[in-house]
Amino acid sequence: MTLDIPALLAALSLEEKAELLDGADFWRTQPVERLGVPGVMMTDGPHGLRKPAGGSDHVGLDDSVPATCFPPAAGLASTWNTGLLTRVGEALGRECRANGVAVLLGPGVNMKRSPLCGRNFEYFSEDPLLAGELGAALVNGLQSQGVGASVKHFAANNQETDRMTVSADVDERTLREIYLPAFERVVTQARPWTVMSSYNRINGRYASEHRWLLTEVLRDEWGYEGLVMSDWGAVNRRDHAVAAGLDLEMPSSGGAGTRVVLEAVKAGTLSEADLDLAVTRVLTLVDRSLRAAGPADTFDAAAHHALAREAAAASAVLLKNEGGVLPLDPRSGGTIAVIGEFARTPRFQGAGSSQVNPTRLDSALDALRESLGGGREVTFAPGFAVESGAADPALVDEAVRAAAGAEVVVLFLGLPPSYESEGFDRAHMDLPAHQIDLLHAVADANPRVVVVLSNGSVVSVAPWQDRAQAVLEGWLLGQAGGAATADLLLGAAEPAGRLAETVPVRFEDNPTIGAFPGELGHVRYGEGLLIGYRWYDAHRLPVAYPFGHGLSYTSFSYGDLAIAVTADGERPSVEVTLTVTNTGARAGRETVQLYVTDPQASVYRPEQELRAFAQVSLEPGESRPVTLTLGAREFAFWHETARRWVVEGGTFGIRVGASSRDIRLEGTVELAGEDFAAPLTAESTVDAWLGHPLAGPWLRERLGEGGFADMLADGAPHGQMMRAIPLRRMSRFPGFPVDEQAVEAEVPRFAAR
Amino acid sequence: MTLDIPALLAALSLEEKAELLDGADFWRTQPVERLGVPGVMMTDGPHGLRKPAGGSDHVGLDDSVPATCFPPAAGLASTWNTGLLTRVGEALGRECRANGVAVLLGPGVNMKRSPLCGRNFEYFSEDPLLAGELGAALVNGLQSQGVGASVKHFAANNQETDRMTVSADVDERTLREIYLPAFERVVTQARPWTVMSSYNRINGRYASEHRWLLTEVLRDEWGYEGLVMSDWGAVNRRDHAVAAGLDLEMPSSGGAGTRVVLEAVKAGTLSEADLDLAVTRVLTLVDRSLRAAGPADTFDAAAHHALAREAAAASAVLLKNEGGVLPLDPRSGGTIAVIGEFARTPRFQGAGSSQVNPTRLDSALDALRESLGGGREVTFAPGFAVESGAADPALVDEAVRAAAGAEVVVLFLGLPPSYESEGFDRAHMDLPAHQIDLLHAVADANPRVVVVLSNGSVVSVAPWQDRAQAVLEGWLLGQAGGAATADLLLGAAEPAGRLAETVPVRFEDNPTIGAFPGELGHVRYGEGLLIGYRWYDAHRLPVAYPFGHGLSYTSFSYGDLAIAVTADGERPSVEVTLTVTNTGARAGRETVQLYVTDPQASVYRPEQELRAFAQVSLEPGESRPVTLTLGAREFAFWHETARRWVVEGGTFGIRVGASSRDIRLEGTVELAGEDFAAPLTAESTVDAWLGHPLAGPWLRERLGEGGFADMLADGAPHGQMMRAIPLRRMSRFPGFPVDEQAVEAEVPRFAAR
Repeated sequence: MTLDIPALLAALSLEEKAELLDGADFWRTQPVERLGVPGVMMTDGPHGLRKPAGGSDHVGLDDSVPATCFPPAAGLASTWNTGLLTRVGEALGRECRANGVAVLLGPGVNMKRSPLCGRNFEYFSEDPLLAGELGAALVNGLQSQGVGASVKHFAANNQETDRMTVSADVDERTLREIYLPAFERVVTQARPWTVMSSYNRINGRYASEHRWLLTEVLRDEWGYEGLVMSDWGAVNRRDHAVAAGLDLEMPSSGGAGTRVVLEAVKAGTLSEADLDLAVTRVLTLVDRSLRAAGPADTFDAAAHHALAREAAAASAVLLKNEGGVLPLDPRSGGTIAVIGEFARTPRFQGAGSSQVNPTRLDSALDALRESLGGGREVTFAPGFAVESGAADPALVDEAVRAAAGAEVVVLFLGLPPSYESEGFDRAHMDLPAHQIDLLHAVADANPRVVVVLSNGSVVSVAPWQDRAQAVLEGWLLGQAGGAATADLLLGAAEPAGRLAETVPVRFEDNPTIGAFPGELGHVRYGEGLLIGYRWYDAHRLPVAYPFGHGLSYTSFSYGDLAIAVTADGERPSVEVTLTVTNTGARAGRETVQLYVTDPQASVYRPEQELRAFAQVSLEPGESRPVTLTLGAREFAFWHETARRWVVEGGTFGIRVGASSRDIRLEGTVELAGEDFAAPLTAESTVDAWLGHPLAGPWLRERLGEGGFADMLADGAPHGQMMRAIPLRRMSRFPGFPVDEQAVEAEVPRFAAR
Repeated sequence: MTLDIPALLAALSLEEKAELLDGADFWRTQPVERLGVPGVMMTDGPHGLRKPAGGSDHVGLDDSVPATCFPPAAGLASTWNTGLLTRVGEALGRECRANGVAVLLGPGVNMKRSPLCGRNFEYFSEDPLLAGELGAALVNGLQSQGVGASVKHFAANNQETDRMTVSADVDERTLREIYLPAFERVVTQARPWTVMSSYNRINGRYASEHRWLLTEVLRDEWGYEGLVMSDWGAVNRRDHAVAAGLDLEMPSSGGAGTRVVLEAVKAGTLSEADLDLAVTRVLTLVDRSLRAAGPADTFDAAAHHALAREAAAASAVLLKNEGGVLPLDPRSGGTIAVIGEFARTPRFQGAGSSQVNPTRLDSALDALRESLGGGREVTFAPGFAVESGAADPALVDEAVRAAAGAEVVVLFLGLPPSYESEGFDRAHMDLPAHQIDLLHAVADANPRVVVVLSNGSVVSVAPWQDRAQAVLEGWLLGQAGGAATADLLLGAAEPAGRLAETVPVRFEDNPTIGAFPGELGHVRYGEGLLIGYRWYDAHRLPVAYPFGHGLSYTSFSYGDLAIAVTADGERPSVEVTLTVTNTGARAGRETVQLYVTDPQASVYRPEQELRAFAQVSLEPGESRPVTLTLGAREFAFWHETARRWVVEGGTFGIRVGASSRDIRLEGTVELAGEDFAAPLTAESTVDAWLGHPLAGPWLRERLGEGGFADMLADGAPHGQMMRAIPLRRMSRFPGFPVDEQAVEAEVPRFAAR
């Protein structure tokens, strides 16, 4: 079944059109029964399906049908594995199809600006390339099943505090280089059916009413052809939103939005063309889902659980592993003391709209016992109550006794659910103090401690990690996280996760001190481009673990770096090749990271930026070549004045390594860049005018020789200071050979090039 | 002689009025000979008179008449001594009077946002209170002699790079709390005859055309009644500038400005009332100078040199003094090796428009020899050539030999003049590498090293200071700096200087990394309020020497803290008293610093802020009480939404100490604060509406019981998330008892309170 959209547009009354732009209820679009247009259903995601089981409540946070809970984004991001994310997307798509869901509300590709953002567990990374690549992979998988994605929250929604009202005050270059590229990549590489506008304002204007964002950038520049819907309750002025390019208001406004739209069209403040455009996009979404919908499939819950286990194993990051304490030998005979309530009661996802009702739930404790099959004794002590504010001496004693009698301790620590959620930000980035006290007590009894962490957003490790021989950062691993953890601990799976965000030494090292979460309706993105590793690099700050870090049970060497310019000029292309060798005794998967530096730039640029990555699986002793391709955007910066991407010529650095601070190979590449001159204005300096390819000769001719020409010369005593004067002002100096009117007259000739 | 301004206004033609707003030449206002209005002369300052000796050149940087060169602001600021600055101001006034100068162009009270600003030597501090108090004291002294000041550069002119064009992009709270208060304090406490607008733009608008800045804030809010002139060449659009409140264009525009003004008045785009206002202010300036001008005085150059020596001695900051190596005993007998070209060829002021032709110039080497009168042998080795880029092995060898044979080494290090100047910013904050190499070589030969620094802006000391037993930060000390340095080294003067800016450990620790000096016409003040110690405190960063630090040859104890609230409510007043005791064996002068903390604020506030200071001179064993008074502004913050200062009730911390990181006494004070409720809008959250003293009861009544009232209640499952929704949006939820129209209708009632 398909829709004849032009015919529908002609047949729909104005009222019906306006109604189509409003949700039917919490989760469905409006049907037009008279014309055979059904409504379509969408449900929360992103890492699983949250389809309400019963009727919808006021806020849509009811119980939901069982669905596979894959690792939330914080986990999936650490896989750096686009193929895996595509497979997870496919599985999500199958579950949606089986449940009659047309659109899954995800993925979330917002940047992790502050470690405290309460929703960081739903976001991928502090780096836009990584977030964009992973988001695109997930969308491609999902949509391959005929289910639409809704990439969110567009844009600059980087906190929960005052999320409905706060204005992210951020300059355009920072938006273009940090906060928008992940969306751009998903839009251009995966063509999501829908984009979800965010709650917040950007530079004072609601995202849901931001025409520049929703139409000029998203559609005109990026070529987006899908639908834009509001985050749930994000519409402020419905008429302004339609004009800005926000097609669908969700959830239902109970008719309020429809009334506002009708009044605006009747008053002539909203054009019917804008209305038709939005209606077309809603109908197109319905049509897409109709084309895809066959008889409701079922899905293979066991296979999806296995995929969730694979994904979870790939999501965990082995931060440290002193003396090779991991993997544990399944046959060594000594007792393994498993300590920490999280081993028995996993914290596997975050709270809020993304909360999935899992089809099953593995605990690490059960999984370890099952995997070992009695090969080693596993004792357990909970150590603490998850939401307790203080230590329970009896539980601590029990844990210490278990530790003392064991060959090795696996201690599960993490954040209580009450610490992080959609809807509020964290107050600090520390584990509960009593958990750290427990670590000290346990390590005093037995120094062979492996810590496994469960946390949706980054926690401080510097204060305590010297008491652990190994630390496995488990993030939130979804319903199969327990089994995956056992797989990693016992070496049944190889750790391949890499950090998608920096672990700082101290909270006070982070860039948003004093500027997060803002106040009185505004949050200043004062650090500009310098979020995440860009900040720590710029300030030469030590970090606990750098962006990109993650250990393996094997080791890798890098060699044979070759850099070839395959195209130059305005649209350069550079091919970087190298060889990675597994130099250890086990199979493993390495993530090769390529960072570009631009030390000769005419503008400030971060020290290095991730511009490509690739993964390679290697048997012991095996070598493989890796090729990474860099295009124009990988060298470009956003020029604030020209308001476009510019590729400057010069020498760029190419740094290839295993993390942002473990660079193994370095080279350089010379690019010609494009023939670019920044547009001149009357206020541009004499220096800028003299340096312009057209204006320079024009001005020099007028200056002639002697007089001002001498005063402005390179070696002149105050030449540098004089050349820094704007030409308009210089033209007012008595005797200057070009007057103000002449300057004004010439500006249009040199305003663009 | 005086002017009858109303009569003149009536008699002046439109052309004559317009002409009066333009300089006559580089340094004088236009006369109106027909009506007996003379022109008045102004010259550069601020730390001495720079009156051109001959005719004026194109850029006004000719040789000037001899005048006393007092320490530039970086030195004077370190005195923290308002009485001394008033006396320096008086002396400057006498020299102006003797030279027929009506206005001295200074002081500069801009904040030291980055250590790299090339003109930091001309500015006082990173703290607005300190800069404002010192600036006001200088202006009061100067103007007491019938000579006008020109407080500059108004405003947010915190760099030299692109200073003519760059836009300081800075939020209003940061302007109000950091970048404007020093100007405000000078204007309200010292009523300067003139204010000089800066070159740069502020949030995209030229300071010289910024009506909000030049009229609304400066005149309407602060009550300023004097004249505003442009920095030299700072006028962009002359008609816009007049309308904004910029009265006088300097230097002469050669008639260009006059023509633009006339055309604008004729075209009706500039009102004659605005023109008359500006003309009145120019005539008032002339009148003020006529009233003051008696027969040209001479000045006592010797007395002024003595004052310059006193000021210089008070300006130097003793950073460290291990083992009491200082003061040097004039009678101990051992040889003093003086090393470093700066000892013989002092660097005593900065380059650019403030450069004074001194009446005499003392070198530290001569002064030491003279003071010792042969009591101890003084050897000298230059060690390096000041502007050399590399070590001269012969000079180093000579220096090492001198060091090896001496009882103590006094090593003069510093920045070459080419490193810092008006017109460009520094590239880094390090001393030349060869000077540090020299220190190592000298310290290897003789570890008893005293380093004396000459630098206009802060330099890194962390990499080398462990090789020096004592470090005396001399800044730039003016023409008597050499003698003053000898006085301090030999104990003839007591070190009382305190740092007016933080000495960071590393350049990378400073807040402006990546955001100074900006690019493409904009510089983002991303750190907001957190400049100087406010930043280092917020990030818990170690510093080499904290703001306010400085050693003495004696020691002080603090006691008897008492805090009394003498007024409460909207205009609180708090009296803080304590006792300082000289616990050492020498007389000394202590600077008591009071920092206020506001841990309960509803907005982000810096950890602590300097809110009062006082100096007390004490003989050995002497105690004195010190009283410091805090008014409303010392507790207030700028409320971005209400756009006014707000004093919130709560517990404030009172910290009294010898530096920002050497707090000796702590207490708290409870203030009731004012009865304030932030204005509500339809976009304010439900929480804000419920919390408003008038709107809360109104909304509660409408919510009634059950339903939404229950959902929004404190303990409700999603209550916090729901209350964060703006009321306008909440009003669109089906069933909500207040609709959008009702919300809009009520807003005016609650928009202010």
